[in-house]
Amino acid sequence: MWTKCHRFNGLLTVLPHWDKPLLYRYYGRQTVSSLFIPMMRTSDQSASASVSRKTILENAGLLKQSRPGLYYILPVALRAMYKLIKVVDEEMTRIGGSKLGTPCLIPADLWQSSGRWDTLGAEMFKLKDRHNRHYCLGPTHEESISELVGTYLNSKNMMPLRLYQIDRKFRDEIRPRLGLRRAREFWMKDMYSFDIDKEASLNSYEIICEAYVRIFKRLGLNVVKVVADSGAMGGDTSHEFHLIADDGEDEILICDQCHKAMNMETLKSGDVTAECNLCEGKQNKNIQKYRGVEIGHAFYLGTKYSKAASVTYTDENNCKVYVEMGSYGIGVTRLLDAALEIQSTSNKIRWPSVITPYNICIVPLGSPKDNSSQQLLQLAQQLYDKLAVGKLQNEVVIDDRIYLSKTVGPGTRLRQATLLGYPYLIILGKQALQKQGYIELEDQLNGSKQNIHIDNIVDHIQQVYEKRDICTL
Amino acid sequence: MWTKCHRFNGLLTVLPHWDKPLLYRYYGRQTVSSLFIPMMRTSDQSASASVSRKTILENAGLLKQSRPGLYYILPVALRAMYKLIKVVDEEMTRIGGSKLGTPCLIPADLWQSSGRWDTLGAEMFKLKDRHNRHYCLGPTHEESISELVGTYLNSKNMMPLRLYQIDRKFRDEIRPRLGLRRAREFWMKDMYSFDIDKEASLNSYEIICEAYVRIFKRLGLNVVKVVADSGAMGGDTSHEFHLIADDGEDEILICDQCHKAMNMETLKSGDVTAECNLCEGKQNKNIQKYRGVEIGHAFYLGTKYSKAASVTYTDENNCKVYVEMGSYGIGVTRLLDAALEIQSTSNKIRWPSVITPYNICIVPLGSPKDNSSQQLLQLAQQLYDKLAVGKLQNEVVIDDRIYLSKTVGPGTRLRQATLLGYPYLIILGKQALQKQGYIELEDQLNGSKQNIHIDNIVDHIQQVYEKRDICTL
Repeated sequence: MWTKCHRFNGLLTVLPHWDKPLLYRYYGRQTVSSLFIPMMRTSDQSASASVSRKTILENAGLLKQSRPGLYYILPVALRAMYKLIKVVDEEMTRIGGSKLGTPCLIPADLWQSSGRWDTLGAEMFKLKDRHNRHYCLGPTHEESISELVGTYLNSKNMMPLRLYQIDRKFRDEIRPRLGLRRAREFWMKDMYSFDIDKEASLNSYEIICEAYVRIFKRLGLNVVKVVADSGAMGGDTSHEFHLIADDGEDEILICDQCHKAMNMETLKSGDVTAECNLCEGKQNKNIQKYRGVEIGHAFYLGTKYSKAASVTYTDENNCKVYVEMGSYGIGVTRLLDAALEIQSTSNKIRWPSVITPYNICIVPLGSPKDNSSQQLLQLAQQLYDKLAVGKLQNEVVIDDRIYLSKTVGPGTRLRQATLLGYPYLIILGKQALQKQGYIELEDQLNGSKQNIHIDNIVDHIQQVYEKRDICTL
Repeated sequence: MWTKCHRFNGLLTVLPHWDKPLLYRYYGRQTVSSLFIPMMRTSDQSASASVSRKTILENAGLLKQSRPGLYYILPVALRAMYKLIKVVDEEMTRIGGSKLGTPCLIPADLWQSSGRWDTLGAEMFKLKDRHNRHYCLGPTHEESISELVGTYLNSKNMMPLRLYQIDRKFRDEIRPRLGLRRAREFWMKDMYSFDIDKEASLNSYEIICEAYVRIFKRLGLNVVKVVADSGAMGGDTSHEFHLIADDGEDEILICDQCHKAMNMETLKSGDVTAECNLCEGKQNKNIQKYRGVEIGHAFYLGTKYSKAASVTYTDENNCKVYVEMGSYGIGVTRLLDAALEIQSTSNKIRWPSVITPYNICIVPLGSPKDNSSQQLLQLAQQLYDKLAVGKLQNEVVIDDRIYLSKTVGPGTRLRQATLLGYPYLIILGKQALQKQGYIELEDQLNGSKQNIHIDNIVDHIQQVYEKRDICTL
């Protein structure tokens, strides 16, 4: 057991004494000891009078503020973020989206052409290079993508064209707050559509909005599509996607009858009535107010940016026609933060099931001095190897910290495993080693615990995951 | 065939006339028409007297310069980059690496503490926020990671700790050149090791260097580990990893006898002899000069950064001990660019096999007016569905541009497919529809073509890929 490497045969390094804790890592199995999850200890937490909701992610070792609005995204949360990105990728690919990468540094002249260099003003980070040329750090990329597409577009056959990226964005928020929800550096998915005319562009708009709805549905989130204001973006059609949340910054009106929703911002003051002005011809008093976190938006842009960057094609009459554009964003880190904060407590993180960082944690109990500890670790590895196949290949993790029992005892390890919200906890105590070995299986999603025979546990879990939509990395 | 959706049943949108070209996308199959691959046409290319090696990637529609040193990474190349990132992730996970994300904006005080704010000088992009606080755009993250780890490290049991990220970096190159090889915005993998003493730190150093060797081996690249100078990083042990390339910017000396290598930079002028000073006691005249592209580096840092950021642990004697650090980089975009430029020609991109963006392209020939075109497209889809399973699930693409035959004829489509370097091309001509249907299968890696019976082609390809190491997204 100590010298043979199942997964990466022949590549095992001979380990010196100080690397013993790393032993399991070299087997290619994922272990808690190799993950950096710097949880605040309970004693540290109680030091601050009450744990505010805002620090749930920091206390759980998922996030750490560097400076206001700037965050370290720690390993477990980063894994969820990459899974979220993969879900978005899947849905964007399905509607013909093509993913590319643009530079964060955007030359000033592009934004001067579109007139936004001054409009966004202090919200933009601006800088100069050593040759004294001016740039901004991209908060959004309409100008860049238009420049790129304008270089190549030569036929209407290249459209509909739906380009997107998922990457860092920058915004010099005057008061960064609410963690990743209003940060100065954050991740966004931004898609840009190019179509031959307005009708086609609005068709793209619908198709992309439908993809958004599918994404939020897969995440199991209560998201509402809301009529919105176009603001500085240009164009005349715009919707936002709001995650309903008590501490959301926006006020949303939803009509009970037509189920349409509207951002309070779009109403002029004095315009606020209790009646829905979207229900045509009908009288309706049932408008409800909610609070929401804006996690997505869609803008039909018309030709504002295609004119600024000369994005044209030649039609049948040999005339140059400006391309119709749309712009579509999802705030990836904002969505992640808001979804976790809404559903979690200071004792348990609750992940959207599809992007759970790890689905199963195996926790062998015991201490280094127990003779049974070695056997429990061995059993944990056997279970790991049986479970970590197919779509669960990278979804299992062993809490191998038996050797740390002085500083991190079994109680702490169980508490941490609960906090991290693994959907399944497999707890290996001494009774697992008995001949009629039973194992405690905790389903953290529905809160149930059951003792299950060791021979049946793998089948049981695999059956559950056959049907469950999970994203794997 | 036109109304039933196999993969995403029930989610098919009713398509208006202008979206017909998108039809195949909605089937969840990957198609060339939905990818943005803006190749230069042959006529555009010949306009410039000779296609320089440097423009291979731009001509192939993989890369596009925005401004000097700033690049759009276009969809096909981006896919290769994400595969490269996944290969690196796999090898970093195997040695216990834990992946996190740090902000690009680094507050000035961190770099002032380490003394590097002035050392790097004009190479750094510097900027101020609206509150007049100073930042740089991170070219490397020793200071940031030390700050982060220093906050949490409280026990020697947390080590060895190996944290890494794969993300954008910034460097204000005075003369950006050679595409992504010397860009001002680029992607790097940077790992930082934290160990209890020097011996343990040098052990981490070896383990991480071995992982680098595995990465380059999987990529099939001729990479040499070279004794190097630590430069502004601090510490006294350093190695670079060089991809041997005729147009590399560095000069490398390799000893025929001990196989050790050295960067010319590490030698003082006048020190250059034809003898190896690493071969102890032996006389050896066989030193060879090569040129190389630096695609990786490793630094043993000692306690330079742990002292600046107070990263300590308490030992058995209750003394505070500064942690020993190492820093390890791989230039992700530089590696990608250099590997492609070395192996490719202006007629054919040659990918490192493991990160090939798509492994199989199905090209049905014909034009919209042919009656057989519909049948060929149908056949292409049937083949796609049989091939795109298991590890090939996202590796097949159909060139569905039959409807474009006026602007993009069969000859052009075949030429483009050759240029993009798919390992396998499946070419469907009319003979594929005959009863004894044979299909042309082109193996672009060894240049062979064969006619293979339609019933055998799937088995043939699947057998090949059972053994081939490919990265899938």
